[in-house]
Formats: sequence, structure tokens, C-alpha cells
Amino acid sequence: MTDMPPLQASKPSVNALARPLVERLRAQADLLDVQVRREPSGVCIVDAGIAVRGSVAAGLLIGEICMGGLGQAHLSTGGLEGWPTWIEVRSAQPVLACMGSQYAGWSLAASKEETGGKKFFALGSGPARALAGKETLFDEIGYRDSADTGVLVMEVDRAPPQVIIDKLLRDCGLEADALTLILTPTTSLAGTTQVVSRVLETALHKAHQLCFPAGDIVGGSGAAPLPAPSPDGVEAMGRTNDAILYGGRVHLTVRGDDEAARSLAQRLPSRNSADHGRSFADIFKAADYDFYKIDGALFAPAEVWVSNLDSGNTWHAGGLDMQLLLDLWRKEA
Amino acid sequence: MTDMPPLQASKPSVNALARPLVERLRAQADLLDVQVRREPSGVCIVDAGIAVRGSVAAGLLIGEICMGGLGQAHLSTGGLEGWPTWIEVRSAQPVLACMGSQYAGWSLAASKEETGGKKFFALGSGPARALAGKETLFDEIGYRDSADTGVLVMEVDRAPPQVIIDKLLRDCGLEADALTLILTPTTSLAGTTQVVSRVLETALHKAHQLCFPAGDIVGGSGAAPLPAPSPDGVEAMGRTNDAILYGGRVHLTVRGDDEAARSLAQRLPSRNSADHGRSFADIFKAADYDFYKIDGALFAPAEVWVSNLDSGNTWHAGGLDMQLLLDLWRKEA
Amino acid sequence: MTDMPPLQASKPSVNALARPLVERLRAQADLLDVQVRREPSGVCIVDAGIAVRGSVAAGLLIGEICMGGLGQAHLSTGGLEGWPTWIEVRSAQPVLACMGSQYAGWSLAASKEETGGKKFFALGSGPARALAGKETLFDEIGYRDSADTGVLVMEVDRAPPQVIIDKLLRDCGLEADALTLILTPTTSLAGTTQVVSRVLETALHKAHQLCFPAGDIVGGSGAAPLPAPSPDGVEAMGRTNDAILYGGRVHLTVRGDDEAARSLAQRLPSRNSADHGRSFADIFKAADYDFYKIDGALFAPAEVWVSNLDSGNTWHAGGLDMQLLLDLWRKEA
Repeated sequence: MTDMPPLQASKPSVNALARPLVERLRAQADLLDVQVRREPSGVCIVDAGIAVRGSVAAGLLIGEICMGGLGQAHLSTGGLEGWPTWIEVRSAQPVLACMGSQYAGWSLAASKEETGGKKFFALGSGPARALAGKETLFDEIGYRDSADTGVLVMEVDRAPPQVIIDKLLRDCGLEADALTLILTPTTSLAGTTQVVSRVLETALHKAHQLCFPAGDIVGGSGAAPLPAPSPDGVEAMGRTNDAILYGGRVHLTVRGDDEAARSLAQRLPSRNSADHGRSFADIFKAADYDFYKIDGALFAPAEVWVSNLDSGNTWHAGGLDMQLLLDLWRKEA
Repeated sequence: MTDMPPLQASKPSVNALARPLVERLRAQADLLDVQVRREPSGVCIVDAGIAVRGSVAAGLLIGEICMGGLGQAHLSTGGLEGWPTWIEVRSAQPVLACMGSQYAGWSLAASKEETGGKKFFALGSGPARALAGKETLFDEIGYRDSADTGVLVMEVDRAPPQVIIDKLLRDCGLEADALTLILTPTTSLAGTTQVVSRVLETALHKAHQLCFPAGDIVGGSGAAPLPAPSPDGVEAMGRTNDAILYGGRVHLTVRGDDEAARSLAQRLPSRNSADHGRSFADIFKAADYDFYKIDGALFAPAEVWVSNLDSGNTWHAGGLDMQLLLDLWRKEA
Repeated sequence: MTDMPPLQASKPSVNALARPLVERLRAQADLLDVQVRREPSGVCIVDAGIAVRGSVAAGLLIGEICMGGLGQAHLSTGGLEGWPTWIEVRSAQPVLACMGSQYAGWSLAASKEETGGKKFFALGSGPARALAGKETLFDEIGYRDSADTGVLVMEVDRAPPQVIIDKLLRDCGLEADALTLILTPTTSLAGTTQVVSRVLETALHKAHQLCFPAGDIVGGSGAAPLPAPSPDGVEAMGRTNDAILYGGRVHLTVRGDDEAARSLAQRLPSRNSADHGRSFADIFKAADYDFYKIDGALFAPAEVWVSNLDSGNTWHAGGLDMQLLLDLWRKEA
């Protein structure tokens, strides 16, 4: 296993692989309660929860679009661990799916002057990030995409202003009619669903922060409970984070040194953070609504399994705290 | 969320959406152990358990046909709650899928004089109900279909007589070769499977009886254990009911007033009925085999979760009684 | 149910049904980390874990290819029974899927003289077995295939020598370019995955050894935990066996006499063997690495459910021993 060839001669295109999924989202818009429109600019907007309601099914499909067609997300309704509805995700290409595509890493900001109205801020996630390649992450994982269509997901409650759309087209090198933007407020069904679908991505991101080599992560799967979206933005965001921090379970398959695998498992779970044990909404309020004051170690699944192909060992650490989630999410009627 | 537009400008056609599933059932007839034949009348009959054995896989597909292509049904074999095999269902359009299509609400009766032989009675379920629109339910949910093909599921152990087929064609406004009838005795694998797939529909129906506004139900999922079919008709029907009454768990997503959501959760589970706690076959015998003597409140899943999008609250009530099912269904070898 | 017609007038072709799955494996080779090449002989080789890494996703697809397109295999990541990742399988045609196709029953050996190098031994599994029909098993189940393409799976760490390929083509009656060989070392992700996907097949095989009539088995499903592959061959094989012997749960649907069904359930589980209770690697070492010294009764799932359509009874026996697996497979980080 030690003289393994590089990942692939030519890497897959996350935008090309996501295209049929985007087409399905458009074709089934009525059934999924999303709205598709073409902006005057020519860009295609899929509203998955602003003027329309959206759905969990739309959120799952958007979750798979976010993973660039390199991962699966589905609902499990077997009532595991005392909660009725869970999302399960998996990928045979977790680095490309999660870091090269799904991670919400592209900062998109416009001032009042630029928009001619309210200032705008959003984090872009999904395949089109890999066309722009604006983040240093792309150098670190050695990936860029060059497809001639692109799709970006934005967790927002209004369409981006023209100045942002112009920037996206320029940075991605796309004609307007080749770009699709999917808008998913966290307060919507699709928004909450697609964020909880990031349970595996959260593990990949934490592993990256812990300096575990991305090239050594060769497979991944996971699950997390799906809460109801809250109409309150902070509460909605809090729940999607809690779902992962206290209910997320991830299984990574890696290569390399066994001590690195053990250490990854030990350091990855959210309980490594001093903030662990309170709801994310509480932590966020205590941090004066400033993400950068929150301990970065918190953003991780609750329970982690790491299997090392080179040793055959599987390391386990952390654990779910379902009672915390049930106390937050469940009311006895 | 309060000034949400109506569900859809144009509603999906449950018969058109079911058509590719019906075509798959026909194409895979050998693999699914069902028999497809065209009657002299021109109507297509799919026998899913009378002259042939049928299968669980056929039952799942028929379950999805019943939901008019607006829901998914699949098997879970993880051995949850001490029983090996479960059915999980979900729909992003539960009102159309379950009430507009799946509900067995179309009474089809013919006297001895009309049939020229034995009298016939069946409840029709599935998409073609929405073509005929004979039930007041269709006015209540504001839905009718106008597709040019139709499919109806009948829980019977013989093909319907010509007088019933004539009525179906007339009421649905279909040419004979545009109608498919799927026959599934409850005593068959496919029959038992497609009835247990009604766990979500049972919740929708009970909610309707409790006068909860159908338009406020915007998503649903659920699960129930799949028993072996019994060769005895009453016993077979008893098991499919028990699967839902004592093993069914449903999660509804609604809009509206929070007290209405809480009350729905509280009143929905089967334990609200005084008959709860005995096997359905026993209850049915005690009622002299007369459905109309049985408390209607009994027909509901055992455990219910209701998430209200407008408040963000999730209400829980009821609970599974797996010990009752295991005592009924499981024998230690 | 007693005068049921024979299974099918014309039985499905496992090689024809597997063909689209083989084509998907080829088309998605990059995404699944497998390598496809055409040998000078014209035969197509899919390397799923020798020169390339392969993946769990490839293993699941190979599992479905092994079942001749007559079964489904998928991953469940809900963390059942304390282990994060499980494989669930099911088939509506378990005799053809498992015995007619998936069972590793074709002995393929070549001496040093024949290979001109190292001697070669492998057990062939999958659809092409039914083209050759070399095993008496095919007479016993009354099935042979006559498709004009074929696919065979071999659990090996090098490509078979030309003398074996010549034999395969001759016995299967295929042109070289119509044969695909899939190579999956047990030490690889795909290899471990496709072996654990045999949990249902293991039950079918044991039932056959117990002389239960194959024609009376009409449906089957099951699940087993998926261990990490070990780089050590004996350990890797031990784990896949342990997954089934101590973590496998199978549900069979049968016809016939109720005492036969009860007895099948009672005698099927692995705990009927005196060797039950130790890891397979230990048992294998104690048997001087000689399979034929191991009690054949051991090769069976841990827990068995048998539903008899003719009586409606479901018999249960055996049980999982997850603690043994967790002690073997899980290390606390």
C-alpha cells in the first residue's frame, strides 16, 4: 500500500458531475417546492426556501449537488437514538466532495455603495468554488475544476446583488447562462437539510485544521439527526450546528501512520472544545454573535471513527449527546 | 411564512408520475414474481399475489405507485427495535401522495345480479381515484387529476367483474387500454408490504378526521415493521394494522398555529383509542367482523412527531409497543 | 399456496442483468478508484484493489454484480449496535442471486507448469459461474445461463494466468471481449465490502447444506457490520467471516412445512457450531490454515429469522455477538 500511485491521472469535475443533479432539481421544481427563474442577467436562480417553501427532499438533492456529485445524502426514518429523522451521507472521494466542493469557504461581500442598497454577505459553497479557486484550500488539496457550467449554493434569504453575480461570473470564467445559484435560507426545510448534510464535511475540515494530510483521507461516511428548521435565524443556525456537534457521527478511512490515525480520532470530536456541552445558540450569544470568538475546535462531529487501511486498525473517540438534543428539540405533547 | 403563496400554480398529476413506475413493474414482472396480462376488455391487469407469488420488492414498488410517484418506500434491514425488516416511507407532498392517491377510499361494489356470479366488493386505492374524484375528500383537499392514463390498486383475491371495470373506465374517463389494475391480496407478500407502506397515509387520514387542515401539512415520513403475511385473511389484515398501530412511527411537518400542532401530536397516536392494546384481529372479532363498530381513533401510528415550521417546535406523543408485536409475530425456534 | 406454479417459465439471465452494473463500474472507474484495462487476450480486467485502492462504493456495486443484478446492497451509516457502518442486502430471487450467481463455488487452479510461473488458485464467484455450470449446485437448483456476455469476480491479488483465462472462455462459451473479470483482494476496501455483502448468500448456502429445498426459499434480506480491511490476508479474511458469523442477521421467506421452517431457523445460526465464540482468524490458525478442518456449520449468520408463507409463522434463532466484534475491531483513541 505504500507505493500507491497518485489519486487519479485526471480528477473528476465536480461541476460536470453535479450538472445532472441540478437538472433534476429544475425538472422536479414543482414536486420539491422550489422555484426556478432566469435573472435578467441570464443567471439561473433556484429559490429553495425564500418565496417558496422548499422541502427536505430538495435539501437532500442540494446536499448532493454541494458534494459535486461525489457523495450521497439520504433520509433515514428508523427513529435511531430517540429522534425520528436522520440524514446519512457518504463519499468515496471525500476530499474532493467535501473540501473541493461542499465546504462554505468562498466569502462573498458587497458594500452598500456596491449594491446600491443593503450591504450583502454570504459564504458560497458547492462546485463553482472549484472553478474560481479563490481559496488557498485549493492549492492545499491540489484541485481545480474547469467545467463550462457551474453551480453555487448560498445560505441567504435574498438573491445576491448584480455586483456579486458579476464577480462570480468573472472569477468562475462562465457565461451568465452557464451559472446556477441555489438559495437556501437556514430557516427553511431545504436549508436546514443541506447544512446537516455537511456532517462529513465538518469532519474533513476539522481534520484539515488538525493538519492531517488531505491526501491520506480516502473514504468517509456519517449521519446526523435532522432538526426542524426554526423561523429564527440564530436558532435555526444553532440547531444545524447542534445536530453535528452533539448528534453527528463520522467514519473516516485513511492511510498512513497509525499514530496519526489514532491522534486524528482522539482530537477530532467536538468534545475536545471547552465550549462543548451547551447549545450552539447559547455559545454564539455568549460570543456576542461573533463566530471568530468561538473555539474552532468545537466545529466537529460528536463521535468519530477512523479506520487506517495501512494498519487495519479502527480508532474510536467521542460520543453522541442525544439527551442534550432531545431537551432542545423535543416537546412532549 | 404567513403570506406563503398557494401550494402550486399547477399541481402534479399522480397518474402521470406513477406511469414510469407502472412501466417498471411490467418490465420487471419476472424478477418481481408478478404476472401481467391484458384482459379481453383491453384493461391491463397486474396480478401481484393471486396466481403468482409476488414479492416484497413488488410491494414496495406498488407502494410508490399508490403514492402517485410523490413518495418513496424502501426496506430497512438493520433489525431496529428487535424486528428484522422495516419499511420506511417519505413524501415531500404528503397530502397529494397519501390522501389524493394512496388512501383506499373508493368503494367499488357489485351485486350478484350485476356480476352474474358472486357479489364483489373492494376499496380502490392509488392514482386513478383522483381521475374519478368520486369521494368528497377530493373537494376537501382541492385536487383532481386529468391524466390520460390511470392506475388503481385493489386489495382483492380475484379480478374485478366486467361491471366494475366498466364503471372504472366511465368514472375515470379512460379508454380501456389506458387503465392498469394492480391486484394485491393482503395474504401475499406484495399485499402486506403495500399496506404497511401506508403508515404515513394512516397519519394523514387521522389528521383529517381530527380536522387538522390538510393544506397545513407540508412534509411527512415514517416507518413500520413488516410482518410476514398470514395465509388467513383476517390474520393477514390484522398484522398489517398492528404493524402501524403498535409499530408505526410518523414525523409530520406542518404550518400554522402551534397549539394546533401540539394538539395534533397529542391526539394522533393510536393509544388515544380505548381499543389500543389488543391485536387488531382480536378487536375485529370482538366487533363481529364489522369495521364500523371499531373506534375510528384506533387507526393511527403508534408514535407521532409533529414539527411546526411556523414556530420551529417539534411535538412528540405516543410510543411503539414492540413487545406486543414480538409476542404476536415472533416464535423462538 | 400449495399448487403454486413453478418459479418462472423462463428464468432471468444473471449475466444480462449484471451487464448494466458492469458498465457503470467501468464508466465510473475514476470515481470508484478502480482501474479498467483490456488484456492482450481481449478480456476486460477490472482491478478493484491491487494496483489501485478501490472503494467501499466499488465493493457495493461489485456485490450487486455478484448477485447477478437480482439483489441490492447498500451502506447504512446509522451506527447500529455500536458499530458505525453496515451493509444491508436483499433479494426477491435469493436462490438465483446467491446460489446461482454470488456463491464463490468455482475452483480455478493452475499448476506451476501450466502458468510457467507461480501456481494459481482462486474461487470464482458471480454470474459467469452460471454460464459454465461446472458445479453440481446448478443441477440442484435447476438453473443455467446462456447470455453472450459474462462477468466473474475473483478474490485475488494478481490477475489470473492465461491458462485460467483460456479455461474460463472455453467453459463459459464466450469470446474474449465478452468476458469481464473483476479482481478484489480481501485486503482492499472493495474486497472486504463485497465479501460482507455475502451475508444473505451465507445463509442460503448453509440452508442448502442443511438440505432445505432451494425452491422453497422465496425471499431474503440481511445486514452485517462492515469492518476495515486488514493489510494482512488472514486477518482480512478473518474479519469478513467474523462480520457474518457474529454480526450477520438474515431474514428468509420460505414456503412449505412449518416444522421445516422452524428447524431451518434453529439449525442455521453460526452458534450451532462448537467453534462459535472465537475469532475466525484464531479458528483458522488452530486448524493449521486448512479450511477443510473447520466445522462447516460455522459458516452462517449469527441471527436468523425464517418466515413461512404457508403458515404465516416467523421463527427466530441465534443472536449477534457485537461485543466480540467490538473487542476485535475497535480501539479507543
